[in-house]
Amino acid sequence: MYTIKELQEVIKAELDKHEYVEEPLSLFEPVKYIMEDGGKRLRPVLTLMAYNLYRDDIEKALKSAIGIEIFHNYTLLHDDVMDNAELRRGRLTVHRKWNNNVAILSGDAAAVTAYKYIETCEDAYLRRVIDGFNQVAMDVCKGQQYDMEFETRDQVSEEEYLQMIYLKTAVLIAGSIRQGALIAGAPEHEYKELYDFGGFLGLVFQLQDDFLDVYGNVAEFGKKIGGDIVSNKKTYLLIKALELATESDRQLLLEWCRKEHFDPQEKIAKVTEIYNRTGIKEVVAEKVDEYLEKSRLALKKIEVPEDRKIRFYEMIESIGKRKK
Amino acid sequence: MYTIKELQEVIKAELDKHEYVEEPLSLFEPVKYIMEDGGKRLRPVLTLMAYNLYRDDIEKALKSAIGIEIFHNYTLLHDDVMDNAELRRGRLTVHRKWNNNVAILSGDAAAVTAYKYIETCEDAYLRRVIDGFNQVAMDVCKGQQYDMEFETRDQVSEEEYLQMIYLKTAVLIAGSIRQGALIAGAPEHEYKELYDFGGFLGLVFQLQDDFLDVYGNVAEFGKKIGGDIVSNKKTYLLIKALELATESDRQLLLEWCRKEHFDPQEKIAKVTEIYNRTGIKEVVAEKVDEYLEKSRLALKKIEVPEDRKIRFYEMIESIGKRKK
Repeated sequence: MYTIKELQEVIKAELDKHEYVEEPLSLFEPVKYIMEDGGKRLRPVLTLMAYNLYRDDIEKALKSAIGIEIFHNYTLLHDDVMDNAELRRGRLTVHRKWNNNVAILSGDAAAVTAYKYIETCEDAYLRRVIDGFNQVAMDVCKGQQYDMEFETRDQVSEEEYLQMIYLKTAVLIAGSIRQGALIAGAPEHEYKELYDFGGFLGLVFQLQDDFLDVYGNVAEFGKKIGGDIVSNKKTYLLIKALELATESDRQLLLEWCRKEHFDPQEKIAKVTEIYNRTGIKEVVAEKVDEYLEKSRLALKKIEVPEDRKIRFYEMIESIGKRKK
Repeated sequence: MYTIKELQEVIKAELDKHEYVEEPLSLFEPVKYIMEDGGKRLRPVLTLMAYNLYRDDIEKALKSAIGIEIFHNYTLLHDDVMDNAELRRGRLTVHRKWNNNVAILSGDAAAVTAYKYIETCEDAYLRRVIDGFNQVAMDVCKGQQYDMEFETRDQVSEEEYLQMIYLKTAVLIAGSIRQGALIAGAPEHEYKELYDFGGFLGLVFQLQDDFLDVYGNVAEFGKKIGGDIVSNKKTYLLIKALELATESDRQLLLEWCRKEHFDPQEKIAKVTEIYNRTGIKEVVAEKVDEYLEKSRLALKKIEVPEDRKIRFYEMIESIGKRKK
C-alpha cells in the first residue's frame, strides 16, 4: 500500500512529463502554468488511494487521476475569470498574466484534455466513468452558479450554503474517490458509498477553508487572511454569525458588509471580533466534527479490511486538523 | 430515406422539448436562448444524414445529433465573449444580454450537456464516439486559438488560413458526419472517408461564409455585409487580395486596414473595389469548386449505393450554391 506522500510523488512525476501539453503551445502554456503549482494534489491522490483500496497496480489509475487534476485546474481557470481573482496560490492568475480570452480558451482546451485522460480506463468501466464524470462536471457548474448568485443576494440560508459548497467543491472530491474505486473494479454499492464518504470529506475541506480564511496562519494557509471578510463572501462563518449574533452585533456586521470605503485591516479585525463574541469558532468546529464523524461512519461501511483503509483515516485526520 | 427538410423538423421537434434544460434555470436559460434560434441545424442534420446512409431508425441517432448541436452552441457562447461580438443571428449575444460570466459558465454547462448527449450511443461504439468527439472538440479550440492569434499578426499565409478554418469550422462538420456513420455501424474505413468528405464540405462552408460577407445579399445571408472588412478580419478574400493585388492596390488595401478613423460604408465600398479589381470573386469561386470536387470524389468512395447518397449530393450543391 502506498503512503499519501508516495502517491503525491507519483502524481508529480507524471505531471512533470507534461504529456498533456499539445500544440499550439500558446494554447497550453497557461494550462501548464496553472498546473505547475498544484499544492497537495488532493483530488488525484484520492483517486489513487481509492484504487489502492482494491488494487496495487496504481499506474493503471494514473491517467484517470491526472484527468481529475486537469479538470480541477480547468475550473480554476474559469472561476478566476468569473471571480476576477488576481492571485492563485500566490501567483498571478492566468487571466491577469495573459488575459480573459486566454483563460477561457485554455480552460476549454484543458476540459477536453481532462475528458481524454478520463476515458483511458478499461472498456468495461468506460460508460460508468464517463457518466459519473459528466454528473460531477455538471454539479461543479451548478455549484459555481449558486456561488455567483449568492454574491448578489442579501440572505443565504445555512442549508443553501451547504448545498452550494457540496456541488462546487465536495462533489469533485467525492467523484475523484468514486472514479478510483470504479476503475479498480469495486462493487457498485461500494463505489457509491465511497462517493458519499467523499462528499462529507469535501464538506469538511470547504468548511475548513472558510475557517482558515479568518483563523488561519498566513504562512501555513498560503492565502491572505481575511480576504473573505473584505469581499463580504457569504461563508459559513458569515451566514452563521448573521443567524446567531446578538441583534446589536448583527447590525454591526451588516454595517461592515455595507460599507463601501473602509480600511481592510480594520474591517477584518472588527468582523473577527464579532465572530469571536458569537462563538463562531466553536460553531464551525462542531459542524466540522459532525461531517468528520459522518465520513468515518461512511468509511466503516466499506467492505475492505480496515488496514487497507489506513490512508483514508489519515486523510480524514489531516483534513480535520486543518483548523489549526 | 429522409429529406433534409424532414431531418430539420425532427431536430426542431426534439430541441423544442428542451430536455437539455436542467436546474437551476439561471444556468440553462442562456443555453436555451442561444439554442432557440438555430437556423438550418447543419451539423445535427449531417449526423442524421450520415446515420441514414446506413440505417432508417434515425431516432436512435437523435440524441447524438442534438449533442453535436449543443456543442456547437457552446463554442458560439464562448467565441462571442472572446470576439466581443454584439449580435448573433440578429439577436443580442448572451454576454451582451446577460454578462461575460453568464456566457462562460452557461457555456461550460452546455459543454457537459453535449458530452451527456454524445455518450448515449450503444456501448459498442462508445469509446470511438468519445475519442472522436474529444479530438474534434480539441481541434475546435486549436482553431479558435489560431484565429485569435491571426488577429494580431500582420501576415497570414493562405495555407495557415486554410488550416485554421479547417480546425475551427470544418472539423466539427466532419465530426458530425463521422459520428452519425459510426453509430450506424459503418465500417471504419468508411466513417473515416466520410470524415474527409465532411472536412472538404466544411472548408467550402467557411469559404462561402467569407465570400458572402462581401458579396452576399443581406436578407439571405442574415448578417450585415462587410463586417469582416470593417474589422480587418483575415479572411480568405483579404489574404488572397494582399497576395494577388497590384502593388498600388496592395498598398491601398493596407492603408484601409491601418486606418483607425473611417466611415464604415466607405471602407466597405473601397475595399470591395480592390477585391473586384483583383478578381477575388473568381479566386474564391475556384477554391470553392476545388473543394466541392474533392468532396464529391470523397463521397464517391463510400461503398453505399449511390441512391442512398442523394441527400449528401444535395447538401454539396446547396452549400456550393451559397455563393449567390
